[in-house]
Amino acid sequence: MSNHSSTFPIPKGFRCSGIISGIKEDKSKKDLGLIVSDRDSLLGAVYTQNKFPSAHVEYCKKLTPSNRFRALIVNSGNANAATGLQGIKDNEHLAETLAQKLSVETDQVFTSSTGIIGVSYPISIIKDSLDKLIGSLSQDCTGISEAIMTTDLKPKLASQSINFGNQRYTITGFAKGSGMIHPNMATMLAYVLTDAPIPNSEIQRLTKRICNRSFNCISVDGDTSTNDSFYVISSAQEQSVDHNQLSIIEKAIEEVAISLAKQIAADGEGANHLIEATIKGATSDEVCRSVLDAVLTSNLVKTAIHGKDPNWGRLLMAAGNGLQKFDLQANSPLSISIQGIPVLIQGEPSDFDEQALTTLMENDLIKIELDLHAGSCSVTGWGCDLSNEYIHINADYTT
Amino acid sequence: MSNHSSTFPIPKGFRCSGIISGIKEDKSKKDLGLIVSDRDSLLGAVYTQNKFPSAHVEYCKKLTPSNRFRALIVNSGNANAATGLQGIKDNEHLAETLAQKLSVETDQVFTSSTGIIGVSYPISIIKDSLDKLIGSLSQDCTGISEAIMTTDLKPKLASQSINFGNQRYTITGFAKGSGMIHPNMATMLAYVLTDAPIPNSEIQRLTKRICNRSFNCISVDGDTSTNDSFYVISSAQEQSVDHNQLSIIEKAIEEVAISLAKQIAADGEGANHLIEATIKGATSDEVCRSVLDAVLTSNLVKTAIHGKDPNWGRLLMAAGNGLQKFDLQANSPLSISIQGIPVLIQGEPSDFDEQALTTLMENDLIKIELDLHAGSCSVTGWGCDLSNEYIHINADYTT
Repeated sequence: MSNHSSTFPIPKGFRCSGIISGIKEDKSKKDLGLIVSDRDSLLGAVYTQNKFPSAHVEYCKKLTPSNRFRALIVNSGNANAATGLQGIKDNEHLAETLAQKLSVETDQVFTSSTGIIGVSYPISIIKDSLDKLIGSLSQDCTGISEAIMTTDLKPKLASQSINFGNQRYTITGFAKGSGMIHPNMATMLAYVLTDAPIPNSEIQRLTKRICNRSFNCISVDGDTSTNDSFYVISSAQEQSVDHNQLSIIEKAIEEVAISLAKQIAADGEGANHLIEATIKGATSDEVCRSVLDAVLTSNLVKTAIHGKDPNWGRLLMAAGNGLQKFDLQANSPLSISIQGIPVLIQGEPSDFDEQALTTLMENDLIKIELDLHAGSCSVTGWGCDLSNEYIHINADYTT
Repeated sequence: MSNHSSTFPIPKGFRCSGIISGIKEDKSKKDLGLIVSDRDSLLGAVYTQNKFPSAHVEYCKKLTPSNRFRALIVNSGNANAATGLQGIKDNEHLAETLAQKLSVETDQVFTSSTGIIGVSYPISIIKDSLDKLIGSLSQDCTGISEAIMTTDLKPKLASQSINFGNQRYTITGFAKGSGMIHPNMATMLAYVLTDAPIPNSEIQRLTKRICNRSFNCISVDGDTSTNDSFYVISSAQEQSVDHNQLSIIEKAIEEVAISLAKQIAADGEGANHLIEATIKGATSDEVCRSVLDAVLTSNLVKTAIHGKDPNWGRLLMAAGNGLQKFDLQANSPLSISIQGIPVLIQGEPSDFDEQALTTLMENDLIKIELDLHAGSCSVTGWGCDLSNEYIHINADYTT
């Protein structure tokens, strides 16, 4: 019913562009992007929970959800966060100016920023580039997928299509993020565009559900940024869709979102391994997420995996930390497997083949499973190892 | 009334020893220590909140608090954590054997372990070394301070004395810890011995209060170990003490504990800088601690400090994360100063001298202050930067 795609066609009704405006020090890198919808579109979004959100997050929150979306402008190289009142004014001024140029209302224009925190927003550079940005609009989203990159090594794109009889729908997403990445979002921007129908009443709830199963399950460094935003935007004119079709559409959007989330984790700053951790046998989703969080953010787990070392004691330690806030007996049975090999079975160390497991630790993908043997809830999430390269990238980012 | 000391005299009533038993791969390193009290002593203790605590933590918890303390045996090189039923049996057997040799009751003997998780406890090596360990007892605690070291580069000791009239009391502590260090304890063992009087009814509450203001305010890597234990042990025969004197005694013990806690943070794995962060202007202690935790555990803050970079945007980001769970308005006024220089004043970036601040970032001690301008609570805590050396140490610890 749905197909993965290795090309990234733009759904009907949308055009995108991505250009070099000169915000970034490296003047050969794209830094300004635009999504335009040729008709009023439905938009659901989830934003950072950080208590010092950027100007664009505060601005866009007030417009979300929307059934009148027409444009979103995004810049990299500057977060417009901790920029005081001036940052808020600049953001509003940009939305107004762009709305005028596109002949739409200001409240139909969304903004996103990603980059350094606490540096004045380069409003003149951006304003001077608007005509070029609008002039570059086309049915290609590779430009914008590059324009949102900061320390990302690769652009992140995913696409699926759905056929209902003769009707074909496209779902295409792009995202950025490789540091400040953590459950509850990160310096992470993700946009999923579709022409598939979604009821107006469902768009925001559907966006939240999908975010919980994708971007809220990844962690690079445990830091939630001031700027995170995840959008689902549908240009479909027709919103009526039966329950079964809507499930198929939601599943396809979720698969695009999970693909983008995994691409973010795999491209985590300095990462050599993508970690896929499943927490199962828990009494609640909350327990699963707390343990998942503790495992994916533990520097000791992340460095062990970097060292290709099946040091499961650190997984047990991290799980025990994740469980701290729950009223559970100490040393309840726990089973751990790494790359499918059981290393701890109901609290007793297993006699596994260390050599075989060490060899499996060479893989790019490291699969961890923790079973709490207490219930039926399970959650899967993604993270990455911690390397010298992460230190290098982050010890020298502003100066 | 109290004096810092650069020597570390053992309080009256105690003897200690530290020897090489052969648990560690490096056979030139001490790995087994013993504290003996020649009379029944008062003991208060705080243990890890990790839900997979080691065998010794589970065992000692049941004996705490105690007014009959006689001995504590501690080994490094093996955590006796995640060692299943055998680990629990081995720990009990060790306590029984040592009690017999010392002619005391088993429930007067405490145990501690630190080192690798999930490896069988080396009970025979330890048992074979008990006579040598007991034979080495003396009024010197340098041996045991070395015997508890794992990845620590330095032993950690602190001492104070108090004079009430002609009566002189000594408070001497020693501790270990440099990884898995986090508020709510870490692979951290700390022992404070004193001959100063403490009422039986107060020992446990006093120990908890002091732990909250010292070891619960440090973080190296955000990981809370399975083995953390903090003990205050008083050999005083006389327990009656007036309120004023008890305050002086508590303050002196607290200063010893804070000194040890700071020594642990400064010796954090791979650390070049000790970070001292003060969170003030908060409506509650809980808010302070949540923000402190977010700041001290943020890899982005830690790498910025490693790079000697006054990147205060990351401090704001971390503070905003620490505030996530509280019902506060977004972008409430925040002030930040680094090394005494204000960089953000009530939410507006200040025009500070970047060159001067960058020079101050060379210091071993980095002082950070965050003012939330909302209340009168404040907490100070300690952490360290994140370096390549941390990755190196932790990518290769088991194998």
